[in-house]
Amino acid sequence: MKYILFFLFASFISTAQVTKEQLNIMPWPQNISLNEGYFALTKNFKVNITGSPNERIFVGATNFLRRLDGRTGLFFNQGFITSLNEVPDAQLQINCVRSGKIELYEDESYLLDVTPSKITINATTDVGALHGLETLLQLLQNTNNSFYFPASKISDFPRFTWRGLMIDVARHFMPVDVIKRNLDGMAAVKMNVFHWHLVDDQGWRIEMKKHPKLIQMASDGNYYTQEEIKNIVKYAAERGILVVPEIDVPGHGSAILTAYPEIGSKVEILNVGSGEKGQQLKQIQKYDLERNAGIFTPTLDPSNPKTYELLSSIFDEVCPLFPGKFFHIGGDENEGKDWDSNPKIQEFKKKHNLANNHELQTYFTMQLIPMLKKHNKTLMGWEEIMTKDMSKEAIIHSWKGSNEGLVAGKSLVEAAKGGYKTVLSNGYYIDLMYGVEDHYSMDPMPKNVTLTNEEKARILGGEAAMWTELATSATIDSRIWPRTAAIAERFWSNENVTDINSLRKRLKIISFRLEELGLTHIKSKEGLLRNISNNQKSDALVDLSNVCEPLKGYSRNSEGTEYKMYSPLTLFADVCSPDASDAIEFNQAVADFLNNKSLENQAVIVSYLNKWIKMDSDLNVLSTNAPLVQSLLPLSKSLNDIAKQLLLKIDKKENADAATLNNLLEKCNSKEHADVELAVYNSLKKLVQA
Amino acid sequence: MKYILFFLFASFISTAQVTKEQLNIMPWPQNISLNEGYFALTKNFKVNITGSPNERIFVGATNFLRRLDGRTGLFFNQGFITSLNEVPDAQLQINCVRSGKIELYEDESYLLDVTPSKITINATTDVGALHGLETLLQLLQNTNNSFYFPASKISDFPRFTWRGLMIDVARHFMPVDVIKRNLDGMAAVKMNVFHWHLVDDQGWRIEMKKHPKLIQMASDGNYYTQEEIKNIVKYAAERGILVVPEIDVPGHGSAILTAYPEIGSKVEILNVGSGEKGQQLKQIQKYDLERNAGIFTPTLDPSNPKTYELLSSIFDEVCPLFPGKFFHIGGDENEGKDWDSNPKIQEFKKKHNLANNHELQTYFTMQLIPMLKKHNKTLMGWEEIMTKDMSKEAIIHSWKGSNEGLVAGKSLVEAAKGGYKTVLSNGYYIDLMYGVEDHYSMDPMPKNVTLTNEEKARILGGEAAMWTELATSATIDSRIWPRTAAIAERFWSNENVTDINSLRKRLKIISFRLEELGLTHIKSKEGLLRNISNNQKSDALVDLSNVCEPLKGYSRNSEGTEYKMYSPLTLFADVCSPDASDAIEFNQAVADFLNNKSLENQAVIVSYLNKWIKMDSDLNVLSTNAPLVQSLLPLSKSLNDIAKQLLLKIDKKENADAATLNNLLEKCNSKEHADVELAVYNSLKKLVQA
Repeated sequence: MKYILFFLFASFISTAQVTKEQLNIMPWPQNISLNEGYFALTKNFKVNITGSPNERIFVGATNFLRRLDGRTGLFFNQGFITSLNEVPDAQLQINCVRSGKIELYEDESYLLDVTPSKITINATTDVGALHGLETLLQLLQNTNNSFYFPASKISDFPRFTWRGLMIDVARHFMPVDVIKRNLDGMAAVKMNVFHWHLVDDQGWRIEMKKHPKLIQMASDGNYYTQEEIKNIVKYAAERGILVVPEIDVPGHGSAILTAYPEIGSKVEILNVGSGEKGQQLKQIQKYDLERNAGIFTPTLDPSNPKTYELLSSIFDEVCPLFPGKFFHIGGDENEGKDWDSNPKIQEFKKKHNLANNHELQTYFTMQLIPMLKKHNKTLMGWEEIMTKDMSKEAIIHSWKGSNEGLVAGKSLVEAAKGGYKTVLSNGYYIDLMYGVEDHYSMDPMPKNVTLTNEEKARILGGEAAMWTELATSATIDSRIWPRTAAIAERFWSNENVTDINSLRKRLKIISFRLEELGLTHIKSKEGLLRNISNNQKSDALVDLSNVCEPLKGYSRNSEGTEYKMYSPLTLFADVCSPDASDAIEFNQAVADFLNNKSLENQAVIVSYLNKWIKMDSDLNVLSTNAPLVQSLLPLSKSLNDIAKQLLLKIDKKENADAATLNNLLEKCNSKEHADVELAVYNSLKKLVQA
Repeated sequence: MKYILFFLFASFISTAQVTKEQLNIMPWPQNISLNEGYFALTKNFKVNITGSPNERIFVGATNFLRRLDGRTGLFFNQGFITSLNEVPDAQLQINCVRSGKIELYEDESYLLDVTPSKITINATTDVGALHGLETLLQLLQNTNNSFYFPASKISDFPRFTWRGLMIDVARHFMPVDVIKRNLDGMAAVKMNVFHWHLVDDQGWRIEMKKHPKLIQMASDGNYYTQEEIKNIVKYAAERGILVVPEIDVPGHGSAILTAYPEIGSKVEILNVGSGEKGQQLKQIQKYDLERNAGIFTPTLDPSNPKTYELLSSIFDEVCPLFPGKFFHIGGDENEGKDWDSNPKIQEFKKKHNLANNHELQTYFTMQLIPMLKKHNKTLMGWEEIMTKDMSKEAIIHSWKGSNEGLVAGKSLVEAAKGGYKTVLSNGYYIDLMYGVEDHYSMDPMPKNVTLTNEEKARILGGEAAMWTELATSATIDSRIWPRTAAIAERFWSNENVTDINSLRKRLKIISFRLEELGLTHIKSKEGLLRNISNNQKSDALVDLSNVCEPLKGYSRNSEGTEYKMYSPLTLFADVCSPDASDAIEFNQAVADFLNNKSLENQAVIVSYLNKWIKMDSDLNVLSTNAPLVQSLLPLSKSLNDIAKQLLLKIDKKENADAATLNNLLEKCNSKEHADVELAVYNSLKKLVQA
């Protein structure tokens, strides 16, 4: 009887009025109101679809049922939804006015209405309805023994039309299933553009039937067949996602030139013989796939007609694989070194009155526009393509910022003012391992700059960029998620949605739910730690990973040669991720303690310090049978040493002098060990100085 | 200084002479001798290949390097191996006399010689050399800060030529990456036949260009394209694995008949009108994809010429996708109900002097032999095809046993004596959730039966069978691994290798290492538990999963209708697996304690009992915010209740009377909760009765 009362009580509490603060929706909707009551889920829950939607809604609604069933274990009776109006009296009614198109500016809005007896999603297009289904999944609440949706009305639409994620599959190839699960993740947070960076110095990843050398010589066997590409494009379209392919030219050209060295810019001049018989021989440079990371010189020759013949023929084969209207041609980081040292190219510049390499590159890029237009594609490129004579039709992808010595988003403003449509990626380079707050606080619409409405309209949105010099298929998910969900909110939600604490709270749940899509961002960590620990169970190793973050920016593998593209990425730095969970909580605890030195607040600090002292001791034991743990011991020792001193200090016992203490503290600021940094350094410093 | 001494000491201990008992090789080699000394791994470790191997050795050796690098974090300099004799002075020399063929009876032997300065693998074929590389990976040892191979000589070859794993992709479709990672797992334990069960009542999984209706109507969109099939066959061949496709006919026919009802056996006779105007109309039965599990009646019509036309045309399209010499046509579980009730088929039987449905099925199967022979394929079928007039060329797949009321492997002996080549799967049905010991103790070569050498030679080997009524792509790995590694040892190693304790010890390590191949058998558990716990951290839930095993045999979903093919398999029973780890340790502890009631032995028991009492309490707390935990509480309560009584008993305090105790004990024997059973029941019983 005690139990029964307890459960009744719990149910009563849990289905009491839910507040907005309790909801874990991301991106946060434009308008939401909560009403009294709730819709209780049962085994008989069914979905019905009406209107004139695209068939993708059947796939989406069936997947919705499976996900909801997987969470709740209710064993819904309804299986596959394959046609309109199959269950007219279903509790969830989805109505779409018309078939959605997978293109920019499509109507993606939806109205979601949850009442105690019925749920309706009304949308102009099935794309909007899919967004509504994702919101509904995020609305799910539970008591101790049941699941329900709170009665509510949501009216929602995106702020920006371009909400993208770029994945680089050239540096490390990503198999089809990795792409698919990330498309599922994108759809779950209402992103709609997948930018597929398919070619770079380290590999060509597209099966080419007319130019098989590209895969034979420049892919290491790691490429997508055309059938796989079509399949992925279809998979994306079923989730409302447009695919934008990228072939990066004229720089980043090592892969193309490995197969076609004759269109490279570099010439080698051999002096053969000597004296009168001596002659100079030009020979074509041989290129190899790049195995290092960095910016390299191999560049296509813009003065060679064969370059354009080849590219035109490549576009003829690649464009039909992608029904979308955009084609990204890269255009970044061409340093022009090989152009400068090639007399033929210098002559070409003079002949065409091209004052410098920028103008030469513009000449090159302008040749590509008609090749793409032939296939009804608009050219897009990284910001370097924006030179004075560039066609206003081109879309400018803004990426440079403080790391390149520029004001963040400078090119975005210039593009918008200059008449170009533009997309922002500066601030959204998720491979650089910055915390979620950095990305979340970056808005695609520049502050402190006055833009006309027309100029503002040219800012299409933003795109998270996942470069993969330091990510493999085993680790990429944890580099993309969950931070990209926060970026998705920035692109979708009202600009006033900026509360970092709310974000962090919701992100924990969103991250957990993303796992149901097959994403491995949580579980891959556990597998890698098993390898590092040599299969020894170890909370200590987990604890250390929860205060360490990978080196940020370009400081890991800074020369580009330590980690080759085939090097193992199974190390501690690959386990760690930004926003280290214990560090975030400790930082908060320190702030609270310094604000109010209550015994309660002090106890939290002391508990962390003791945890790290024990951790160090446990790691030393662990390391006796785990070589990969050795390099972590200095980190844990530093934390242990300062923790011991801080405990003495908090207890007001005799501790080390200021110099010694600072010395110990600074050891926690080292970037010398295992390619990670201790994310608690700043808070430790505050405690030392308090 | 203290640390330095400590490390030196640890290194000294760890590289001391390794014994055979310390090695974790599986399957255990035919001959192994350990020598003094060791080969120390360094960053400069390189591989060289000589002889005349197939190119698959380059793929295999490159993958070997990547795996070894991932484990050791040494950052080997060597990247891709693409040709012979690239590094003549490499420390690992692989020599193969000739290119291996992917077929039965190929020479798979290898000699592995590890000396302190050099490692050599000599093999007749690259297939043997690949096996040698897997053994070498399993030989890896470590000190506290380095990795090495112990000096040793291994001469190895398989006992059976057919070492198979069957995966059913009809009941639950398994995406390409699931198949690939399981092929990697097979190669790691030297299995060489992948039997691909591609068609059953629940789906047709092969893209058909001439018969698109099969995928349009009978796959739910879940099928392999022909390109994907070729790609998988190639991937398998690169790992020395032969692929044997199965199209199950004439029973298990719902999928085929959904697309082609006109070749079904069922007739429906309609009485239209009445009186004189009345007439009987025969109409073709409509079929649907089956959503339940079980044995169903839809069966192809063996009297209809169109049946053979369709099958012949299907084989013409499917056979060329599989270069191997075998084609499995199923033939199992045809109950002939629709044959009995079809007058036309009854007439056909009489006309052809076929005494019963067995003879009719033989007639049917015999028609398929020339269709397959045309493509140079031998017909293989489940044991039901072995009737008196069956061609001796057919291969008999023995599967029935005690569950079917027969002596285990009866058909295997009959086949061998009857002149048929045969493969054993009885005893290796890994989907039935029996413990590893059951499978390990089953030998393909029957005991207690006298067979001539010729008859013995007809026993090709064995095959683990993974049916997927109760497994999805998220759970299948944990149903296959690690138990299949033990079965692989049964098929490869000497028949005297039977020590279950040695097996269990090695299996722990092998299981951990299999994870590096992308197999998810360990980490998928963690993801599913997060869902069940509603993202609450819970050791209690893990603890419960470590004493529970899914219901065995056919007792879960015994009616076949509770779990539809689209039902969630995200429940506690899907998390649990056979050989529950704590149960195995507790069972051992109880045996030890009953053998010697020392305080030490008692302490282990007491510690488990206390753990379960705490677990129950923690699970009750957890359940207040996790509906999926509710159904587990009775299990944990049963364990809690008996544990409390046993503690009293051990402490010699007053405990419940015998009847009450037995009542509590029997609650631990319940199969009523959450589709699992407590794997500690027998040991608890021993303690109660002690």
